Amino acid sequence: MDSLIEKIRSEGRLLDGSILKVDSFLNHQIDIGFMKEIGAEFYRLYRGCGVNKILTIEASGIGIACITAQFFDCNMVFAKKSKSANLGDDVYTSVAHSYTYNRDNVITVSKRYLSKGDNVLIVDDFLARGAALTALIDIVNLSGASLSGVGIVIEKAFQGGGDMLRRQGVRIESLATIERMNAEEGIVFA
Amino acid sequence: MDSLIEKIRSEGRLLDGSILKVDSFLNHQIDIGFMKEIGAEFYRLYRGCGVNKILTIEASGIGIACITAQFFDCNMVFAKKSKSANLGDDVYTSVAHSYTYNRDNVITVSKRYLSKGDNVLIVDDFLARGAALTALIDIVNLSGASLSGVGIVIEKAFQGGGDMLRRQGVRIESLATIERMNAEEGIVFA
Repeated sequence: MDSLIEKIRSEGRLLDGSILKVDSFLNHQIDIGFMKEIGAEFYRLYRGCGVNKILTIEASGIGIACITAQFFDCNMVFAKKSKSANLGDDVYTSVAHSYTYNRDNVITVSKRYLSKGDNVLIVDDFLARGAALTALIDIVNLSGASLSGVGIVIEKAFQGGGDMLRRQGVRIESLATIERMNAEEGIVFA
Repeated sequence: MDSLIEKIRSEGRLLDGSILKVDSFLNHQIDIGFMKEIGAEFYRLYRGCGVNKILTIEASGIGIACITAQFFDCNMVFAKKSKSANLGDDVYTSVAHSYTYNRDNVITVSKRYLSKGDNVLIVDDFLARGAALTALIDIVNLSGASLSGVGIVIEKAFQGGGDMLRRQGVRIESLATIERMNAEEGIVFA
């Protein structure tokens, strides 16, 4: 998606050659006009697949999922990372390691909001090692729902999560794929 | 907002007479069509105030803020609860106690995305004791931005946060106000 690559080039900041900050438009401030372009692109890629539910994980995925769900005219569900006292026991759970915060997150989705009849599109802001995405797919499988595929805004291909999951047969569409990034070359897109 | 009160009556679940669960449409699964009605209502209340930024706090506020920002044709920013290693030091911070999770959250907003020229509408799903909202208002004040007001989906008036903040001169518009709730009477709206 050319406009996304442009946006990353103009607004993204590469810290220490290894951390890409896109918090001006994607995961702290959200550029709503641009997010609509992203939602439209996911819709172009997955229309006709019968998607009736968008699934993501808190917190950065929520905005993307809400805007995308408007295009599919369906509801969205976000997996929770902290086990709230209020969530109840009737949940699907899986475990995902967060490398950003260096901790294991038990992620949960209420059984009320994901079940056999659902056809799910998972969306998220980043795909790196694939820990969060693997846990979300695990939860879709536990629920008996179908998975149409995954929509990722930025894939860091050099971290291998995308390849690992594609080898397992998961359809993953990434709107921008970074082949490598470092202080010398900056961000190199695939 | 009558349709919201209807929605709470039909889908809300009152646990132990004290916990209101509205996770079928507001803060786990999000009913996107209904969320658009909520965004439209906040726009009706605050149009003409010159709002150029919607502010909320992760995670439950993000969806509401994204949909509302579409009506105002502006960007949104969500305050973060965990201090990520990636966020940097150039942040406004405040402290809010979470009664749901029983812990203090240091909440942060990057100085890049909130500043003197901004005119802010804060939105959130619930207003109870007002801890999160007080911290968000604190951050708006630290930034030098103007605050047009606050838009809340459900105010639990009996917990006092709304009255406390209104006495301080903050404009708060709640789309549904619960006067009390208990096992005998159920949910009693104001």
